[in-house]
Amino acid sequence: MDITIPKAAELLLEQDQILILSHRAPDGDTLGSAAALGTALVRRGKQVRFLCSDEPDKKFLDLFAEVPFFSPEEAFQPGYLVSVDIASTNLFGDALAPYLDRVDLCIDHHVSNGDYAKLRCLDPHAAATGELIYDLLGEMGTPIDAQIADCLYMALSTDTGCFKYPNTTSRTLRIAAALIDCGAHSADINRRMFDTLSHARVALERLALERLQFHYNGLCAVMYLPRSILEQTGAKGTDLDGIIALPRQLEGVLVGMTVRERKDGGFKFSLRGEPPVNCSEICEQFGGGGHQAAAGCVLDVPTFEEAQAQILPAVQCHLAALGLLTDAPAGKE
Amino acid sequence: MDITIPKAAELLLEQDQILILSHRAPDGDTLGSAAALGTALVRRGKQVRFLCSDEPDKKFLDLFAEVPFFSPEEAFQPGYLVSVDIASTNLFGDALAPYLDRVDLCIDHHVSNGDYAKLRCLDPHAAATGELIYDLLGEMGTPIDAQIADCLYMALSTDTGCFKYPNTTSRTLRIAAALIDCGAHSADINRRMFDTLSHARVALERLALERLQFHYNGLCAVMYLPRSILEQTGAKGTDLDGIIALPRQLEGVLVGMTVRERKDGGFKFSLRGEPPVNCSEICEQFGGGGHQAAAGCVLDVPTFEEAQAQILPAVQCHLAALGLLTDAPAGKE
Repeated sequence: MDITIPKAAELLLEQDQILILSHRAPDGDTLGSAAALGTALVRRGKQVRFLCSDEPDKKFLDLFAEVPFFSPEEAFQPGYLVSVDIASTNLFGDALAPYLDRVDLCIDHHVSNGDYAKLRCLDPHAAATGELIYDLLGEMGTPIDAQIADCLYMALSTDTGCFKYPNTTSRTLRIAAALIDCGAHSADINRRMFDTLSHARVALERLALERLQFHYNGLCAVMYLPRSILEQTGAKGTDLDGIIALPRQLEGVLVGMTVRERKDGGFKFSLRGEPPVNCSEICEQFGGGGHQAAAGCVLDVPTFEEAQAQILPAVQCHLAALGLLTDAPAGKE
Repeated sequence: MDITIPKAAELLLEQDQILILSHRAPDGDTLGSAAALGTALVRRGKQVRFLCSDEPDKKFLDLFAEVPFFSPEEAFQPGYLVSVDIASTNLFGDALAPYLDRVDLCIDHHVSNGDYAKLRCLDPHAAATGELIYDLLGEMGTPIDAQIADCLYMALSTDTGCFKYPNTTSRTLRIAAALIDCGAHSADINRRMFDTLSHARVALERLALERLQFHYNGLCAVMYLPRSILEQTGAKGTDLDGIIALPRQLEGVLVGMTVRERKDGGFKFSLRGEPPVNCSEICEQFGGGGHQAAAGCVLDVPTFEEAQAQILPAVQCHLAALGLLTDAPAGKE
């Protein structure tokens, strides 16, 4: 059932032992939103824990100064489960698996949200889940101090490419302005998130640029990153963040795909698209999802060639259905 | 003499034939500010012309739909000269040379502004001259329609790296939000300015990354782009925009320099710095200027080696004076 932000605020204030869940491979929005909400609830006297299947990058860890990570061994008994920025149960990961059917409240902004929770507070027009949390804290009457402002600024800025992506609205910018006035260290966050390149990242970028492949008259660009390249350059998860956007940024490209060979097998496809392309529609065919402009999916097949042989025809059909391919194969539309 | 924005608005409304000047190698702020001011003055029934020593990149040309470019042959007699975003007369260039001592009003945000005009309206706290123009149009009572909003959004976003650089304030974000509400095509502008890489740019980046040199324990990175590389890749001015930021973005770098061999001789140094480094202080020693975080200068010497032999010691002294070099040479502090 869908509920409003005031109703969500009311329900949260009635709870005492709250477990906040973030999606696997956590980004700035799911972590910043969770940390902001958690910190605010701690300030309101609640017991709060945080759980995520993958360890957050260390640059995010200081967000959680006041919200302990959940350990099943401890005495804490979660009385109320809140997921933030988790579009579907596919994104729960192993550590969240015990809670698949137990989420009380889902707070999210993904239009593809799977409606898996008992209650859902969803705003697909929000650029980031952080926007909903900002309103939620307002409804809860919890002042936004510099620490919470940092969390929410992190959420908004990372999900909008520092206010560059088309999901950015005047509302997003006004909330960001308010967060700066509340003490958010925006310049410092921006520098760390968007303006610092590790030497590994630069090495990765050079190798990746050499491996770009174009399909469908240059409308689709694919950049494949095998483990060997990731290991050779020493590139970590965060080094990949900017790289993922690269294929789509090339002039003429409407669908950019970055494909990573996963440590534990399979291939992670990260799609970025320009309108009218809908990345989420493509990824949903493979059990993934996301937004129109950015979506992802994992293909559990043994080789990159097999993975690509599955996803490229889906891209081709999508482009053909949009009338963007003049040489679409018969029977594919 | 320094004047306020209301006073500047009053003076401009008294004029009839206004010539607006932008700095050479024009960027989004000088052009967007000039186009916004010019369009607003045209709407107020003024005769307005625009002059710049270098031809603006074609992506900027549609900003000037209602403000004709000035041709000395035409009947138009400039009665009032306004420079926008021009920090010093060094940035006038050839076409503006006849007006060196004739500027009536300078509207600018550079802290290094040379005070060359009869009157000056300066706000060094503004992230872009576009912020002053936004206030000026408010004082003039001129409504901001979508066309003017596009000009001002262009000015603000380009001078802040799409709200990423430390000069961005909550005020900058609120003005940007207001401009979006006035109809600015922010997503389209962002995509064209910040999110589209030409194939030439990617080729240039690959070659440039191979040429990075580090000095002073990695605190300073230098990237030299000779004409041969620029010609080989077919890279144009706009392809260079993102490249210029690269050396400073590398982890550990406090001063990043991109050096371009100029067509007409000499070398253009573009400095980007992290606090406490002050790029403007370094560039001013060579007749250039700008901001603490971003500044530039031209060295008119025959070879890159000679140019570098002049500027590197200045960087070294600057770093040493800040206590950042443990092995500063004797007598250089």
